Amino acid sequence: MGVVTPPKTPKQDRSRATRQRLLEAAVACLAEHGWAGSTVSVVAERAGVSRGAAQHHFPTREDLFTAAVEYVAEQRSFALRALDRSDRRHVVSALVGLYTGPLFRAALHLWVAAANEPQLHARVIELEAKVGRESHRIAVELLGADESVPGVRETVQGLLDMARGLGLANLLTDDAARRERVVAQWAVLLDEALR
Amino acid sequence: MGVVTPPKTPKQDRSRATRQRLLEAAVACLAEHGWAGSTVSVVAERAGVSRGAAQHHFPTREDLFTAAVEYVAEQRSFALRALDRSDRRHVVSALVGLYTGPLFRAALHLWVAAANEPQLHARVIELEAKVGRESHRIAVELLGADESVPGVRETVQGLLDMARGLGLANLLTDDAARRERVVAQWAVLLDEALR
Repeated sequence: MGVVTPPKTPKQDRSRATRQRLLEAAVACLAEHGWAGSTVSVVAERAGVSRGAAQHHFPTREDLFTAAVEYVAEQRSFALRALDRSDRRHVVSALVGLYTGPLFRAALHLWVAAANEPQLHARVIELEAKVGRESHRIAVELLGADESVPGVRETVQGLLDMARGLGLANLLTDDAARRERVVAQWAVLLDEALR
Repeated sequence: MGVVTPPKTPKQDRSRATRQRLLEAAVACLAEHGWAGSTVSVVAERAGVSRGAAQHHFPTREDLFTAAVEYVAEQRSFALRALDRSDRRHVVSALVGLYTGPLFRAALHLWVAAANEPQLHARVIELEAKVGRESHRIAVELLGADESVPGVRETVQGLLDMARGLGLANLLTDDAARRERVVAQWAVLLDEALR
C-alpha cells in the first residue's frame, strides 16, 4: 500500500513551478555567463520571478547555484534510465553526453569558482561527491558492469574521468567530431574490458 | 657545422632570468588565486620584479598568462622525454601527472575565464591547440604507440582526456589514492589495446 500524499494546493503548485524555473534559469545563466556574471537578481529576471520571491526560495547565491546544479544533474541522470542498453557505443555516448552540455559547463564554473571562494568550497565538494556517486551508479547500471570483478570499478571510474575530460575539451570549441571518434574507439575497448 | 651563437651579454642574461621568474610566478599565482586574483602587479611583486619591468616583458595581462602557461607546459613536456618507457603504468602515471599539478590548475583557470572573456578567448583556443598537440606527441612517443594502426590515435586521445578529467577531479580535494587505482587499471587496458 502506497503512502497517500495529500493533494497539492494551487499555491504549492505555483511555488514548486517557480522553484523549478529558478533552478533551470540558474544553470543556463552559469553556463553562459560564468560565476562572476551569475547572481540571484540576474537569475530571477531570467526566470521572470521577483527578486524577493527568488530570495524566499534561495536565501543566498550559494544556495541557488548548488541547488540548481544538483537538480539538473538529477534530471539528466533520471532521463538516462530509459536508455537502450544493448548498444555499448550508444551507452558510452550518452554517458559522455552528461558532461558536454550546459549542465557540465555550469558545474565547471561552480567547481572552479569554489577553488577560490571559501563560502562555496565545502558545499561544492559535497555536491561533487553526490553527483559523482550518482553518475557512477548510473554508469554501472547502463554498462551492466559487475563491480565484484577486480578492476571493473576502476574501468568505469576511468571512463567517467574521460567523459569529464571530453567535457573540458568542449568548453571553448566544438569538439563533437573528435569526441565521437574517441567514444567509438573506447566503446570497443570497454567491450573487451568488461567481457 | 653548427651555427655559432654570439655569447650573451650579462644584460641579456638578466632579462631572460627576469622573464622566467615572471612566467613561473604567473603560473603559481593563477593556480593559487584564479583568474580574478591574478594581475600583472600581483605577479611582478611575487617575482620580485618592478611593475614597469614586468610590463616591458608582457604589455598585457593576457600576454603574461598565456605565455606563462605555454612556457611551463613546454618545460613539463620536455622533462618527460627522459622518462623510462619500459613500465607502462609508470608512463601513464607520468602523463596523468601533467594534469594534476599547479600547471593544470593554472591552465584550468585560464580556460574557464576564456569562456567569458572575449580578449582571452581566441588566444586560449590557440594555446590549448598547441599544448594539446605537444601532449599528444609526447604520449605517442612514451607509449610507443603506432598511429598508423586504426584506432590507436583515438586510444591515446581518450587516455589524455581521462588524464584531464582526473586533473579536474583533483581540483577541490586530494584525489591521489583513487587516481592511482584508475591509472593502474587503465595502464592494463592500454597494454591490451596497444599490443
